[in-house]
Amino acid sequence: MHAYRSHTCADLNKSNVGDTVRLSGWVHRIRDHGGILFVDLRDHYGITQVLCDPDSPVFSEMEKVRSEWCVRIDGTVKARDESLVNSKIPTGEIEVFVRDLEILGKADELPLIVFGDQEYPEETRLKYRYLDLRREAMQSNMTLRSDVVASMRRRMWDIGFREFQTPIITASSPEGARDFLVPSRLHPGKFYALPQAPQQFKQLIMVSGYDKYFQIAPCFRDEDPRADRSPTDFYQLDLEMSFVTQQDVFDTISPVLAGVFEEFGGGKKVDAPNEWPQISYADAAKWYGTDKPDLRNPIKMQVVSEHFAGSGFAIFAKLLEQEGTEIRAIPAPTGGSRKFCDRMNAFAQKEGLPGMGYIFWRDQGNGLEAAGPLAKNIGPERTEAIRQQLGLDVGDAAFFLGGKPKAFEKVAGKARDVIGEELGLTDKDRFAFAWIVDFPIYEQDEESGDIDFEHNPFSMPQGGMDALNGDPLAVKGFQYDLACNGYELVSGAIRNHKPEIMVKAFELAGYGEEEVKNRFGALFNAFHYGAPPHGGCAAGIDRIVMLLAGTSNIREVIMFPMNQRAEDLMMNAPSDPSSDQLMELSLRVIPQD
Amino acid sequence: MHAYRSHTCADLNKSNVGDTVRLSGWVHRIRDHGGILFVDLRDHYGITQVLCDPDSPVFSEMEKVRSEWCVRIDGTVKARDESLVNSKIPTGEIEVFVRDLEILGKADELPLIVFGDQEYPEETRLKYRYLDLRREAMQSNMTLRSDVVASMRRRMWDIGFREFQTPIITASSPEGARDFLVPSRLHPGKFYALPQAPQQFKQLIMVSGYDKYFQIAPCFRDEDPRADRSPTDFYQLDLEMSFVTQQDVFDTISPVLAGVFEEFGGGKKVDAPNEWPQISYADAAKWYGTDKPDLRNPIKMQVVSEHFAGSGFAIFAKLLEQEGTEIRAIPAPTGGSRKFCDRMNAFAQKEGLPGMGYIFWRDQGNGLEAAGPLAKNIGPERTEAIRQQLGLDVGDAAFFLGGKPKAFEKVAGKARDVIGEELGLTDKDRFAFAWIVDFPIYEQDEESGDIDFEHNPFSMPQGGMDALNGDPLAVKGFQYDLACNGYELVSGAIRNHKPEIMVKAFELAGYGEEEVKNRFGALFNAFHYGAPPHGGCAAGIDRIVMLLAGTSNIREVIMFPMNQRAEDLMMNAPSDPSSDQLMELSLRVIPQD
Repeated sequence: MHAYRSHTCADLNKSNVGDTVRLSGWVHRIRDHGGILFVDLRDHYGITQVLCDPDSPVFSEMEKVRSEWCVRIDGTVKARDESLVNSKIPTGEIEVFVRDLEILGKADELPLIVFGDQEYPEETRLKYRYLDLRREAMQSNMTLRSDVVASMRRRMWDIGFREFQTPIITASSPEGARDFLVPSRLHPGKFYALPQAPQQFKQLIMVSGYDKYFQIAPCFRDEDPRADRSPTDFYQLDLEMSFVTQQDVFDTISPVLAGVFEEFGGGKKVDAPNEWPQISYADAAKWYGTDKPDLRNPIKMQVVSEHFAGSGFAIFAKLLEQEGTEIRAIPAPTGGSRKFCDRMNAFAQKEGLPGMGYIFWRDQGNGLEAAGPLAKNIGPERTEAIRQQLGLDVGDAAFFLGGKPKAFEKVAGKARDVIGEELGLTDKDRFAFAWIVDFPIYEQDEESGDIDFEHNPFSMPQGGMDALNGDPLAVKGFQYDLACNGYELVSGAIRNHKPEIMVKAFELAGYGEEEVKNRFGALFNAFHYGAPPHGGCAAGIDRIVMLLAGTSNIREVIMFPMNQRAEDLMMNAPSDPSSDQLMELSLRVIPQD
Repeated sequence: MHAYRSHTCADLNKSNVGDTVRLSGWVHRIRDHGGILFVDLRDHYGITQVLCDPDSPVFSEMEKVRSEWCVRIDGTVKARDESLVNSKIPTGEIEVFVRDLEILGKADELPLIVFGDQEYPEETRLKYRYLDLRREAMQSNMTLRSDVVASMRRRMWDIGFREFQTPIITASSPEGARDFLVPSRLHPGKFYALPQAPQQFKQLIMVSGYDKYFQIAPCFRDEDPRADRSPTDFYQLDLEMSFVTQQDVFDTISPVLAGVFEEFGGGKKVDAPNEWPQISYADAAKWYGTDKPDLRNPIKMQVVSEHFAGSGFAIFAKLLEQEGTEIRAIPAPTGGSRKFCDRMNAFAQKEGLPGMGYIFWRDQGNGLEAAGPLAKNIGPERTEAIRQQLGLDVGDAAFFLGGKPKAFEKVAGKARDVIGEELGLTDKDRFAFAWIVDFPIYEQDEESGDIDFEHNPFSMPQGGMDALNGDPLAVKGFQYDLACNGYELVSGAIRNHKPEIMVKAFELAGYGEEEVKNRFGALFNAFHYGAPPHGGCAAGIDRIVMLLAGTSNIREVIMFPMNQRAEDLMMNAPSDPSSDQLMELSLRVIPQD
């Protein structure tokens, strides 16, 4: 017989009755029922009930065993009484009577109980991660993560992509975030950096003629602490393709992601990729107040300025006289009660706005009636025009926000979320996707009036060089995001592969050609040697697994995460270097005051 | 029609004749034959011959096109004349007559020609890697690497392993080599390190109950320059399993590797895994002079001390009077000529030995005759006994080395390689594997007499605690390597998972319990909470791909490698940090004299 096991703890069933078996695993629970010891023996695969009665030659040894000891047992499989069969687990028909026991690994007193789902402080969980990871929820989250990544790889291979690994020790790159630096020993005073993303490398792979690249890529950013983000690194499904349009990228990644969500989404509805809407950045802001709208929520905001211009509601009427202002309505079907409307108004105030005006429609026996102070101010005709525009009826409400869109859009988007949530309009059993397209290439600093890249400088402007000769703020990029349930899952672009357009694009943002060479020298040089048109995207793996696992804490889907202070409490990182190490690197630490 | 291509450059054949098609790719070669331009248009998939005659509306534009320009063409597919069909390429039956041309990316004058296989200095190749990577050999090497890694993953999944990613930013670890350090911004003066291997993490994953782990894992070591090794990082197929014996690990990884070599070995014979010999470390040294023997070479050395003890060959006879000495024979079938024997003797002298004695057997018409000075010295009886022990005959030779094995074994091993090579005994069309087992846990420093770990301190000693109570130098570990064609492909062990044995093992090497806690705190702590017996191994991916690609330069199988001075010439890494970056990290660079 094998030294440790003839079966796993999920293998045995009625067909094994009478067999002598060997199992290894952890003591999940041990109970004494009338002098008989009942042990739930657990391994990665399942749990088997093990019995030890006083007739067993190892009874006295078994009495000493405690939870989370790792043991090997030999025993005989017996059928359970019909009444004791546990149909919830595959081994529920049998139990094993122990004849021999070997203690493989004892356990000290436990700082964290594996059985059950008691809550522990994150410090404890991360310090004793090896115990925390034994818990059912973590076993299932880690298995999910591994299976999601494997599924992504399979799907990418199936459509002709190859995975190429790009360097992890490389040059400091100007992607916007802060680099982790790595001092060079062989070149004193010089530093490598960990890549913020394989952006430049994947583009260089396209220039190198590989046509279709993907990578499950680690990305490193020295971030300040934030709850839903690792302070050190994250993983992307990164892909790039040559000779493609934006639509080709969509057609490539959409079925991959839809497939993953179908496979691991626990039966929730997944919108079919050919039905994922493409919404312009401008429309997304207008309709949803965000560039990552949650389309499980059917509410779509509308501009209703015309009904307020010159109306009796002086605040809005006056507002509209200023340039660049508008009135936006958030329709709230079934929200037609004063109580609800007041609560939403209070929400807007909590978010820093003066409040949200509202109208709601009721029938108090005299037919349709519009209620709320706003309705009174603008009068029945305008109120009715608004109702018709928004397609609302008795029992519904609408909220109104006015001003410059930038000033209220974010709160409007949040209000839309809360309204959808509270009214039960948001379909929780669904993954709803939308491509957000036509991002502007540039943005203008409100104070200085300076123009800078809105996102990154890698995207091809729609209209190419011609477009750059017009109004920079009107230039849109072949740049896109994929939103799912209110999160940004994917970001990508068709790249600017023409050096002359690159130079012009930087010029508009106030940088000279030297800046292009400094910041993207390798890419800029490479584009002088026959660069193909190319584009791609990157999908956030941690985020996808979080969505599928139904958690909003990134540390639930990472095996050995840092805490929010970027410390690994289990490994004790970061730590003091030895003076030899610093010497070899020609570095001195500046003492802190 | 698609913006860039209706087909790839490998797609078109006779069935497309008459079609209007669109292709995109690089101008591989362009030739003018009697006023007609012949363009080999190349993409990742293949090459299509494109023709442009003066009737074409884009003839004058096409005349300007140069090698490695990236272009899009529209044209009509025509069948080639029977006599012009090129059966070597899939598109060899057709050619495309160009009607439209779009320049997608021009190329400056090329520092490196993609067509053909002209040699370039490595500096040039690495600086213009995107051009180098377009060359046929590099396309094929990179594709091979990607496919090998994909195949490994598929094979690991198929046998129930899951891939789990372990941290890349972690704690400095004492695996023996030099760490790359990463300064922490949030914790001034403290440093992270890049992992030398996921060793501790994979063991922690076993303690966490995951049973079967693997990872295509990047490993980081700050190495001094060496030709066959990356100075910064390398990749391993890393695996670990719980509740296993050494044989279980062999039975797991062997079919995976055999499968990969079968799949990508280009038809070379791959020894069947169940025939891979298990050779003790001691026997490997004795028979092959190395712990990574090349078993494609059938030569097996033998100890022949008895035939020289007290013989007339005074040098050996005297040598054998010293303790710990012996005489080793390298049989050389078909090597029976004075010329060959002298050449081998000269080889040994070049390697720093006084020389190799030899005997060779010939038939000059009077039957079997032993020749060479050695034979004369020891006389016919001893000579014949040696011949019989080694199983040699007319036309064969044997070489002899004497002394303390440590002093001559390495050269003996090299001589065995050269002999096998020169006599054509080494089967070049074969991948020959052997497990090397029973490595000693400790080694003794010859000068100081101190005892230290021979390899790493993670392995379980054979015989456990009992063995550690005896002679440390006699203790063998459950530690193993896999040799293939003279290279170490895999290294692994059954781990020491018992804290008390760990403490004892360190004590023997002169370290206190504190040392264990300092060096492997996380692991040592974890072993106090129910650790399962576990073991595994890691296979060197770069090495495997090098063997399969038939190259001995690691930079041929890495997409964007560092040069031997650990510089990335394309990305310009390492580079000077900004003073802001240093300030944020609380670091100062010590000026170099």
